[in-house]
Amino acid sequence: MSQVVTIALDAMGGDHGPTVVVPAALEILARHAEVRLVLVGDQASLEQHCATGLERFADRLQIRHATQVVGMDESPATALRGKKDSSMRVAIDLVKEGAADACVSAGNTGALMATARFVLKTLPGIDRPAIISAIPSIRGHTHVLDLGANVDLDAGQLFQLAVMGATLVRAVDSLERPRVGLLNVGAEEIKGNEEVKQAHVLLGASELNYIGFVEGDDVYTGDADVIVCDGFVGNVALKTSEGLAQMITHFMRQAFTRNLLTRFVGLIATPVLHSFKKRIDPRRYNGASLVGLQGIVIKSHGGADALAFANAIDIALIEVAKAVPKTIGEEIGHQLQATGTA
Amino acid sequence: MSQVVTIALDAMGGDHGPTVVVPAALEILARHAEVRLVLVGDQASLEQHCATGLERFADRLQIRHATQVVGMDESPATALRGKKDSSMRVAIDLVKEGAADACVSAGNTGALMATARFVLKTLPGIDRPAIISAIPSIRGHTHVLDLGANVDLDAGQLFQLAVMGATLVRAVDSLERPRVGLLNVGAEEIKGNEEVKQAHVLLGASELNYIGFVEGDDVYTGDADVIVCDGFVGNVALKTSEGLAQMITHFMRQAFTRNLLTRFVGLIATPVLHSFKKRIDPRRYNGASLVGLQGIVIKSHGGADALAFANAIDIALIEVAKAVPKTIGEEIGHQLQATGTA
Repeated sequence: MSQVVTIALDAMGGDHGPTVVVPAALEILARHAEVRLVLVGDQASLEQHCATGLERFADRLQIRHATQVVGMDESPATALRGKKDSSMRVAIDLVKEGAADACVSAGNTGALMATARFVLKTLPGIDRPAIISAIPSIRGHTHVLDLGANVDLDAGQLFQLAVMGATLVRAVDSLERPRVGLLNVGAEEIKGNEEVKQAHVLLGASELNYIGFVEGDDVYTGDADVIVCDGFVGNVALKTSEGLAQMITHFMRQAFTRNLLTRFVGLIATPVLHSFKKRIDPRRYNGASLVGLQGIVIKSHGGADALAFANAIDIALIEVAKAVPKTIGEEIGHQLQATGTA
Repeated sequence: MSQVVTIALDAMGGDHGPTVVVPAALEILARHAEVRLVLVGDQASLEQHCATGLERFADRLQIRHATQVVGMDESPATALRGKKDSSMRVAIDLVKEGAADACVSAGNTGALMATARFVLKTLPGIDRPAIISAIPSIRGHTHVLDLGANVDLDAGQLFQLAVMGATLVRAVDSLERPRVGLLNVGAEEIKGNEEVKQAHVLLGASELNYIGFVEGDDVYTGDADVIVCDGFVGNVALKTSEGLAQMITHFMRQAFTRNLLTRFVGLIATPVLHSFKKRIDPRRYNGASLVGLQGIVIKSHGGADALAFANAIDIALIEVAKAVPKTIGEEIGHQLQATGTA
């Protein structure tokens, strides 16, 4: 990338707003000389938060005033109708206008998806945009979609997810033929619902590198590069994993703090435990992409810290460099033609 | 329990057959003086495996010959039609005939459910039997159902799951009013599919201690005693958790074996790590109940070892003591009447 890339940041979104977004922005600017960032939100507050940054990166850091903030529990409909000058909306508007190449928000997922869909529109051939993210696996990571945008998908829509996922992974991970798996259940009697069975046929006939059904544990084995499921299932899988990770952390801490001896052992084991934790640090995987839109929108976890938010910005930069929406648009046309479902 | 309880064990099922089932059986007999066990399977092979046991527990350990074995990948239909003298089928037949109070099998889930349903029949008022198991949580454990028997359930059927789950937990955990949660997704825009939304209304109007929607991470927080979802979602949540636990174990082992120093640290930390592992040892949670049937059938994990299989037998013993099927039958009649859906 020698060209200047501009990313709009919803600086008021998420649980922490500017206290997280501003340090993340400064970190990114320090690391990437060719990046410009636009902080969208309350001008006065943002100026306070990044006075030194504005000086240091005068030509590459900019504030765009927005008077409103979308609440974390606000309904998508309310946000869309009543918050036309929210930091979230304005950040997406900048993408639409071409003033930014992508935007990143830690705001509420429902409002972000609804607004992005309304402003940017879906790509031709895509019925429903989806949420995709990389999840750490034993051998690297696996991209999973949909993580919660659509609870009911028919077979054709699951097929579209597969095309979007494979195209994104080919671009961002530079994999020639990413392995695509369709999430299903194991017990013989009940191998999948109708939608999944039909999607299986569509995928088998497609030009994708389809490896067939996978089960929940395959999310973490690394046997697939892309795993496709509807948003209800994907969201539950993701949240369940978060819950289990929290419980394991809780019990581990408990085990090492039980008494003086275990505390001492914990002290000795700290460097090893740290290297282990780093391997699956969720902050390193922060940043889900809203795919299927005519523009790049990255959703950061609402509770993300600066390191995690910076990771989400990095994902936006990669997707800009690889022109992900354009590539998906081309690929979906090609695949739909190839399978005769166009 | 002063009365003698008889449990039939499918001694040929699972990945390990008698090499696991026989030691588990001997362990149970040694612990419980009032328990009789019937090992169902190939007589010659079983006699070989438990010669000393047959002597030691002459009056409480019995072999019931069965000529066939249901394969782990065999379809339910084939098992049902072609394997009428399988160890699995005969064990279930013993329950039907009243010769056993419950049966335990590590055989394939689909065949077990199909056979149990065919032989024992569902309880009046129950459309679909389900699979339920306790899962460790921060504050004890949470029962989740359905874990894979039914991929498509309507609102009324989800309601039946809730009644079955609550009744089972009230009986086995001696909780007066178990908290029942309905699994849903988080993002506002898409709060659930139609089935879940309607089940929410039914549950809200019921006499159950319904705490509303819960998300995937609540499986592990312990905020609910029973979590209800369809079998597709439940199966994915369970398998995803298994996969994540395996990955964490893998990375942890890797961190502690990287070099001589980390190995030494690992050695020092071993007792602490063991106490931590014991807390979430999946073997202590082995044994899922097939609920909604006119009889008690417990499914052990196919790869279970003797400790785990013995745990599944213990679950069978508790359900016999609490007369779980009878209690569910009474409760479903009562609840359906109360909500006017009878």
